[in-house]
Parts: sequence; structure tokens; C-alpha cells
Amino acid sequence: MKRKDFDGLAEKVRNWGRWGEADQRGTLNHIQPGVLKQAAAEVRDGKLFHLGLSFDQDGPQLGRGRFNPQRYVTELFNSLNPAVPGFCYSDDVIHMPLQCATQWDALAHVHYDGQLYNGCSAAECLSEKGAARNGIHHLASPGIMTRGVLLDVARLKGVERLALDYAITVDDLNACCAKQGVVMGAGDVLLVRTGHILRFLEDKDRPAYMGLQCGLDPSCAEWAHDMSLAAVASDNMAVEILNLEGLRGDTPLAFHMLALRDMGMPLGEMFNLEALAADCAADGRYTFLLSAPPLAVTNGFGSPVNPLALK
Amino acid sequence: MKRKDFDGLAEKVRNWGRWGEADQRGTLNHIQPGVLKQAAAEVRDGKLFHLGLSFDQDGPQLGRGRFNPQRYVTELFNSLNPAVPGFCYSDDVIHMPLQCATQWDALAHVHYDGQLYNGCSAAECLSEKGAARNGIHHLASPGIMTRGVLLDVARLKGVERLALDYAITVDDLNACCAKQGVVMGAGDVLLVRTGHILRFLEDKDRPAYMGLQCGLDPSCAEWAHDMSLAAVASDNMAVEILNLEGLRGDTPLAFHMLALRDMGMPLGEMFNLEALAADCAADGRYTFLLSAPPLAVTNGFGSPVNPLALK
Amino acid sequence: MKRKDFDGLAEKVRNWGRWGEADQRGTLNHIQPGVLKQAAAEVRDGKLFHLGLSFDQDGPQLGRGRFNPQRYVTELFNSLNPAVPGFCYSDDVIHMPLQCATQWDALAHVHYDGQLYNGCSAAECLSEKGAARNGIHHLASPGIMTRGVLLDVARLKGVERLALDYAITVDDLNACCAKQGVVMGAGDVLLVRTGHILRFLEDKDRPAYMGLQCGLDPSCAEWAHDMSLAAVASDNMAVEILNLEGLRGDTPLAFHMLALRDMGMPLGEMFNLEALAADCAADGRYTFLLSAPPLAVTNGFGSPVNPLALK
Amino acid sequence: MKRKDFDGLAEKVRNWGRWGEADQRGTLNHIQPGVLKQAAAEVRDGKLFHLGLSFDQDGPQLGRGRFNPQRYVTELFNSLNPAVPGFCYSDDVIHMPLQCATQWDALAHVHYDGQLYNGCSAAECLSEKGAARNGIHHLASPGIMTRGVLLDVARLKGVERLALDYAITVDDLNACCAKQGVVMGAGDVLLVRTGHILRFLEDKDRPAYMGLQCGLDPSCAEWAHDMSLAAVASDNMAVEILNLEGLRGDTPLAFHMLALRDMGMPLGEMFNLEALAADCAADGRYTFLLSAPPLAVTNGFGSPVNPLALK
Repeated sequence: MKRKDFDGLAEKVRNWGRWGEADQRGTLNHIQPGVLKQAAAEVRDGKLFHLGLSFDQDGPQLGRGRFNPQRYVTELFNSLNPAVPGFCYSDDVIHMPLQCATQWDALAHVHYDGQLYNGCSAAECLSEKGAARNGIHHLASPGIMTRGVLLDVARLKGVERLALDYAITVDDLNACCAKQGVVMGAGDVLLVRTGHILRFLEDKDRPAYMGLQCGLDPSCAEWAHDMSLAAVASDNMAVEILNLEGLRGDTPLAFHMLALRDMGMPLGEMFNLEALAADCAADGRYTFLLSAPPLAVTNGFGSPVNPLALK
Repeated sequence: MKRKDFDGLAEKVRNWGRWGEADQRGTLNHIQPGVLKQAAAEVRDGKLFHLGLSFDQDGPQLGRGRFNPQRYVTELFNSLNPAVPGFCYSDDVIHMPLQCATQWDALAHVHYDGQLYNGCSAAECLSEKGAARNGIHHLASPGIMTRGVLLDVARLKGVERLALDYAITVDDLNACCAKQGVVMGAGDVLLVRTGHILRFLEDKDRPAYMGLQCGLDPSCAEWAHDMSLAAVASDNMAVEILNLEGLRGDTPLAFHMLALRDMGMPLGEMFNLEALAADCAADGRYTFLLSAPPLAVTNGFGSPVNPLALK
Repeated sequence: MKRKDFDGLAEKVRNWGRWGEADQRGTLNHIQPGVLKQAAAEVRDGKLFHLGLSFDQDGPQLGRGRFNPQRYVTELFNSLNPAVPGFCYSDDVIHMPLQCATQWDALAHVHYDGQLYNGCSAAECLSEKGAARNGIHHLASPGIMTRGVLLDVARLKGVERLALDYAITVDDLNACCAKQGVVMGAGDVLLVRTGHILRFLEDKDRPAYMGLQCGLDPSCAEWAHDMSLAAVASDNMAVEILNLEGLRGDTPLAFHMLALRDMGMPLGEMFNLEALAADCAADGRYTFLLSAPPLAVTNGFGSPVNPLALK
Repeated sequence: MKRKDFDGLAEKVRNWGRWGEADQRGTLNHIQPGVLKQAAAEVRDGKLFHLGLSFDQDGPQLGRGRFNPQRYVTELFNSLNPAVPGFCYSDDVIHMPLQCATQWDALAHVHYDGQLYNGCSAAECLSEKGAARNGIHHLASPGIMTRGVLLDVARLKGVERLALDYAITVDDLNACCAKQGVVMGAGDVLLVRTGHILRFLEDKDRPAYMGLQCGLDPSCAEWAHDMSLAAVASDNMAVEILNLEGLRGDTPLAFHMLALRDMGMPLGEMFNLEALAADCAADGRYTFLLSAPPLAVTNGFGSPVNPLALK
């Protein structure tokens, strides 16, 4: 995206000051009690889906920079009372990037021009200690629960998976809403299905899953803004289209920048939407209660999550 | 507890085989679609509470064996396109026990007499690789969502916090239900408030919070079994009473053993129930939708969690 | 190696009880004061060589199981006195396998038939806590310093690197001693140069460096025993030949088993011998003072090391 | 120390440019071949001493910021060939600060006025990736080996341990040399014994060991400079006196700043000098070959070490 176009878009979607100068929760502020009541009202059948990947060495990471979780057993057959050795407990420790598998990005995860969401100075807020402002813990208190809406773009296009170079447009999103018969509402979390995760789950092809890939065109930020969405998540690596233009152009990770930094809108990545999407296609209902609480990792740039959808 | 009494209790509550020989989810099987629909029906006001502690160096751990989370920043002001240095992202890594703050215990977390839940051999299932059976990931697919019921025992007793040596009895639980006007149902998650967590949150007294402390008397296991509860969580360190008898007697961690190993009932620890309890006391409603999904840490002995209660 | 042949060899080289029933230092006992004086006497020119690889993400590990060191910065521009912000310090943390790059194997690192060096029961000594006996700290107090002898087998064979499937024989070692004009002595550490490390250092080919590879034939154990060597190290991954026979045959890692478990002889791996070997070839002197102290990692199975050779 | 006095001292001892603009080894450049030959000539009896502490949970750290090493077993009874289960190996992983026990400080470990040793810009060289210049790996290639000289100040003063508030002066060092009959030489590593480590080793009093404590007065930097020492190490936490003035005054950690940043002189901390000192007192010889190679942790701020002294 040209910087000039990007700047125009950014100006339109920027929410700085909208919820006060001290705000660090951004578009989660759209989740008002009425939204939560409506979200609960979406529950009709009591069907529960988990959207989280497994956290282990078989995860999607390729191993440099970000890696897959390492888990260590620290206690095994440990007995509190040596006189009763048969009564035992076991403990373990995990070592993992906060951005390794299914995750939320904190608002502080990306920035440009030296400022984070709500105008915070990156130089002042970011350090080896983490994000002094806009850390993930602000999205965790309370955590993310609201109405979820699945837009199954792969199904719209009649494919199992979008082509690697496919950029989802606003027209696609509108067409999907129309076809599925859903109307987005303020405070909704949008789940975008690209099918791309099958390259990992079915093909076991990590390089394909983690390489250049399909996703939202940055222009979708304005749509998300107009719809007053609380957050957007997808089954791909970074929600947005990852192509050479998007990574190496004038405005790298443009959608991330617009969403996290300008709108204050959290992004959810690597959500496994397969089972949920199949069910939505079967019963024609693409709305549900979504619960996806990040851990309150103080000043963290993200959090692993195991999202739940209840229909 | 005398071993003989323990064995009698264990026989009464044991659920091995109840949900099939291969089952690894235990009492979560009580969470049927009807329960989930009822849980959603508890949502009336759209009030959301998070019950998770923060994950950072100020956590409750004293530092040997289990420690507080260490978080490391691995990328800071990192630009994907060196030609556009102002567009940056930041990443981090966490290193923490799976049992350090608000958490679920996996069914494999404790055992006695060489067997885990559902009769699995501890020698065969437990190793430096973790729990080959009854690992936490089984409780994560799908994660724990159901109706939650708060029993505020501290309030019942007219205190802010129970005395450190107070063992909550079945009579207490029944009295609490009666006073609060709630009836437990199959598939409910019981949240027991002791107020003990205030010794950490208010007093900042970690040794007090992590030392000998109030909690459920092991005999409460039978009550939980009779009520067909899906899980029990509390605001203390280990749900159950931790006294010298409980730690060093004939049947150490008796409630853990009965719950996790015999019943297959997950335990939630260090849930911060203060704000939720205040609200329940104010409006007289102690039931809500509870969402507390563990991460799918493959073969893990537990998982951090940020539980949400929606009224 | 056939199990029967292996057992015969093991019986010949076994040092159990030789230095007492409680001994946990094995052949390091050969390093007597006289040896150390002789080692110092090898120093003639004051030329110092370090034989250690770098510890970073560009190390030789491929990333599953064993991985390359992860280093995290924990303090940066941290000032002790906030009133004097310009006076700062920085700190960091390392997370790495004790077997990731240049390293010593502890005597407990391998075993067979349920016993470690000196007859210790593996079942009793090895746990998720590490090696209760024969841990690396016993080789660290004091650490390994003695006379070092380089046998440059690659040069003997007239190649830069031995072929991947080349198994170094006792005849090769004897021929090398003869050609180089060295006589091994009790308490010496033997450094065997295969040139294999160039596949990593020059070719940057990690899979080749970490795959099937050249090294000592297990029969060399008897030679090392007869020479009363203190330890053997090499520039390859595991000192010994790694072929399908050696890894998947009747006696996997036979040389490791004989050396560590039967002889109590430490093995040093991934020593970078290139600069030292070039110097030895230039001046014709293949003996030197070797200092290669493991860290006293209590109960550890190994230790990283930066060996020094002083000629 | 007053800033003005500090600046005067800094100017006297600053070695920037002395070994070239690109130099990152500082006073290790004093270790010339002649020094190494002389060091070897100090070996007379073949007596070997290790000066390193153990690396485990019982280390000196109090647990916030810097902590004691965590070691995790990752493989246990692991057999390469499942058909031969009795042939096993075990592996482990370590997680530790590079500054937790016996260690070398990298030249980049501290700085003031925005510059590191040799005039490097701190802003340009220090990041969450570590020290792009003056990292510990420069002190590891080759590692530190030279003549070592023990100055036993505690013995000079007739005490087992210096008082906590005792600042060692240049007069003390000179008196010690005179009493012990040693003459410092260019390229020597000075080991200063305060006895303070006994508060940890004997008293098991970590807070005392890690709190305000005895050590070198910052003025000793000039003496070290005049003597052309290669490095200084001690048995205390930070070589220098740690008092309120030293930590909270105008020039915090003044000796560190002068040594690491101005002189380019590495500092060794928490060296256990007890056994060596006893031997030196017994035979009256306080000089020896010292080998203390840091690990080549690329861009690290320090390295654990197990120093060896050979007499």
C-alpha cells in the first residue's frame, strides 16, 4: 500500500482518544452489556467448539525467532509425605513465545512512526521489560467474550482453501455476510475463515503455513471500523494478506498497523475454524457466543489462547 | 484422613469406566448440551468478570520448585522492511510453571497406588515427557465452559477470609446453597470462595498465601460426586484444606487424589473470586456462565487460565 | 557390534571399583600431579587456542529435542541510581541444552543394562531431577586440565575431512602416533581430528554435520583403556562413528557405552580443532597443555565448555 | 565517588584506541606469549584447584531479576534403538542468568555517558539482541588463560572475612604484595580474596552474601591500570565495594565503570578462592597458571565459568 493511501485510511479508522486518553483496551470497549446479552442469546443448541491449536513441539513454528513450545517436567512421582510414597504429584514448566500458536496480539505488538495505540510514545513505552502501555493484560481484564461471527470466505469462493496469494476484499466480506444472512454488529468479533490452516493441519506443511499467504486486504480495516467490530481473528498466520508487497512495501503489515495501532483492535491468529465452520455450514447459523480470554501476562506483547465458540 | 476411610470414600466416588475405558475427560462429560444452554440462560445483565491472576514476577510463588513467570522480550522495534524502519513489531517469550498462578490441574497431576484416573498405570503413562494419558489437552478439547455456581463460604461465616485452619465441610456447602438459594446441577462448575486470596492480594503476604491454609475437607468429594459437578475451583492454593494432617498424614492431598484420580474431576486453583462475589452478594444471583478454557498443552500436567464469568 | 563382542570388550575396559566404590570421576583419576607438571612443561611458545564453538542461534542443532541456545536480555540501560541515569548495566539469561555445542558428556549421560559407571543403578540414580550419581559436577571439581594430544587422522589420510562413513580404527590411531612422533601417556586427553566439523563451519550444512558421520570405531575403547587416557574428544558430533549399525544395531552408541559407563571416561564433542591442527602441522608438535573445565552443573548430564590449548 | 574525581580517574586509566579502534578484548591484550610461558612456568607441584561455584537451585541468587539455574531433564532412559531398550541416554537443558554464579562480566556489561569500551555508542550497540560490540564472545576467543596472582587481603588483615563495609585500598594491595612476596606483572589476572564468600558457603546466608559488602575501593582501578593487569576477579559479588555510596552515589558501580568501560578490563565475580588461598598460605606461593575461559556466548553480557588454578 502506498504510504499516502495508508495515511488516509489510518486517519479514517483511528480511535485515539475515543475512549479516553488513558484507554488501553481499544475496540473491546464496543463490548457493552447489551452485546454480551445478545451474545448469550445466540446459544441455542449447546454445541461447544474449541478453536485453539495444540501447544507442543509439533506446532507451526519453523524454529528461528519464534519456536514451538518446550515443556519440561520438573516433578515426577513426587510424594509430599515420604512415609507415603505412593501418593504423588507431577509438575511441569513451559517455555514458549507468546506468539507461537493460537494467540491474541496485544495492541503494543506493532507500531509505526514512533507511536502506539492512543498516541503512546513507543520509545517511552517499549523496552526489554515489555510494553509499559497497551500490554496484553489490558485485554485480559476482563478477557474477550462477546458475540462471534464466522465469515467463511473459503466456502464463499467454493474452495477448501483460498489460493496463497488471495487478498480478501471488502466486497468478499459483504458478499459473505449476504450469502450467510448475517449482519455484523458493534462489539462482534469477526472470525475469517480462509482454509489456509489446512496446509498445516492436513498437509503438515509448516513452511507453506508460515510463508507468504492469503488473508485480509488492508482496506478491510475501514470495514471493520465502520462495523465497530471488537476484534478480528483468522485461521491464517497474521489475519492479513502476507505477500511481498505487504511485507516489504512502503507500509509493512499494514492491516496490523491500522488495526492494533490506529484502531486499537486486537487481532487473533491461527484460530482453527474447521469444525466450527462445518457446523455453521450445516445449520446455516454463523453466529455464536465467543469466549477467548487472553492470559493477563503483564506488559506482554501477546497471549496464547484456546478460544471457545458456543452455539 | 485414615487410609481406610479414604479408601471407602474413593470407592464411592470413583468414576472409572463410567464414560468408557478410553475416557480422559472425566466429569467434564457431565457438561451436556442441555447444561450449556442452561448456562447461557443464566446471562441476564451482560456483566463480565475475569477470575485470573496476573502472570508476572509479582505472582504468588515463593520461588523454589514453582516460580513466577519470567517473560523475555525477543524482538523490539524490529522492522520487516529495513527500508521502512518506522514500521515495527515486538515479540516475547514466557517461561513459567504450568502451575504458577490461576490454573487447572490435569487429571494426571496427582495419583496414588500407581494408577491415574480411569485405571491408567502411572509407571507407563508418566515420564520426563509428561502425561501420556490424562494430560491437560484432553480438558481443552473442548475447553471448560458451563454453568458456574459461586458458594461464598466466607460470607456464610460472616468473615472476610476463613481462618487458616478452617476446613470447609459438606454442611457448610449445604448451608451456603440454602442461604444463597441455589441448587447445584449436573455439569456445574463449583467456585468456592474462602477469601484466602486476600492474604496475597491485599496483604501481599505470599508465604501466608502459599502456606498451610483453609479449604475443602476431603469429605466434600462425595458431595461433589453426588451433585455430578463438572469441576471445582477455589481462590486458595489447592482447593482443599492444607494442614499438617492433609500434607503429611496417611493420605496426602486426599481431596486432590479423590477428585483428579478417582472421580476424574478437574480442579481450578487461585481463582480470584472477589469482584464476582461482591456482585453476587449485591444482586443475590450466584449462578452465571463460566468460561475457563485450558490451553491444549499436549501431555501437560496443568494449564494457566483466565476464567470468565458472565452474568 | 554384536552384543557378544561388545560384552567381551566391556569386560576388558571396565574400571568399576578401580578408584573406590564411591568414585564418580573415572579416568580423570589418571590425571596425577606428575601428569599436570608434564602438561605444563609442554608449553614452549605461549600460543593459545580456543576449541569451543559459539553459543548462539547459528549453532549446529537442527531444532527438535536439542536446539541452539536462546539468549534473552533481561536488563538494558538499567541504572542503579535513578538520579544518575547515565550509569547503566545490562543482564541476560541463557536457555540451552547442556548438549548443544562444544560439550563434555557426564558419565551418567548413557548407560546400558540398568547400570551406570561404577555399578550405580540407573533406576535409582536417574530421574527428572537429573543424575544423582555420576553427574557432570564430579568432572568439574576440579575441572579437566591435563596434557592434550592431537591425533590428526584427517591429515594422516591426506584429506581435509574423512568420508562420512569412515570408522577410525586402532591402526589409524597407532599410525597417527607414529607419523606425528607422539607417545600417549597416562592421564592424557586425546583430541581426534576428523575434519568433519568443516561440514558445519565451512559448508554451513547442519544436517550433514548432525547426520550419519565418521568417528572412532568402538574397538578404540580398548586402546584408550590401554593408554590410560583421561578422556577423548573430537570435532564430530559424538566422538564415535555414527552409522546405521552404530545407532540401530545391537549395541547402540557402543563407544559411548564403553567409555562413559564401563571405563568412566568422559567424552568431549564438537571441539573445533582446525586452528590448533594447522599449528601442530606447522611446527610438528602435537602435544600441549589442555584446559577444558566443565561447569559444575549439579547432577547434570553434560556441560558446555570452551576448551583451551596452550603450546 | 564525586563525579569530578571519577572523571579524573577515568581519564588516567582509559585504554580506548590503545589496541586499535576495532579492539574488543581490552586488557586481555596484555596476555602476550611471554606471559603465557611465564604462567606455565609457575606450575611446580601439579596441584589443581577449581574456583567455580555449583550451578543449581542452591546458588547465591535471591530470586528476583537474577535467579539460580533451573535445569530440566528432557530425555531419560531414551533408547536410540527401540529393539534394544536397555541402551539409553539422557539429556537436559539449563535456564540461567549469565550472571548467576561464578562468572565473567563482558566489557559491554556496564557503561556510562552513552559509551561502551573503546568509544562504542551504547544506543547503537545495545539492544534486546544483546551487545553488538564488546560481547563476552570476544573474551572467549581465545578464552582467559594467563598467570594468576592471589592477593589474600583477608589474611593480610588477620581475619577470616573482611567486615561488610571494608573497602580495600591500594595500600592494602601493596601491603599484600609485600607480605606475600609477589610482584604483579603485565597480563596477570589478580584474584582478590576477601573471605566474603564464606557468608554464603559457610553461613548459608544468601542475603548477606548478596547485600552490601566489602570489596575494592574504586581507586584500585588506577593500580590495576599501572600494573597492566589483564583482569581482576574476587570472591565477592561484584569485585568492588558495594555500599550505599557505591550504589546510590554520583558514580554507581564506579569500579565496574572504570574497569569494563574505560580500561576494557574484564571482571570475574564469585570466584571461590578458599582452597587455593589455604594452599598458597601453606606453601607461600601465591602465583599459578590460571585458566578461566568464558563460553563464547555471542553478544552476551557475561558467561558462567569454572576457573582452574594450577600450581
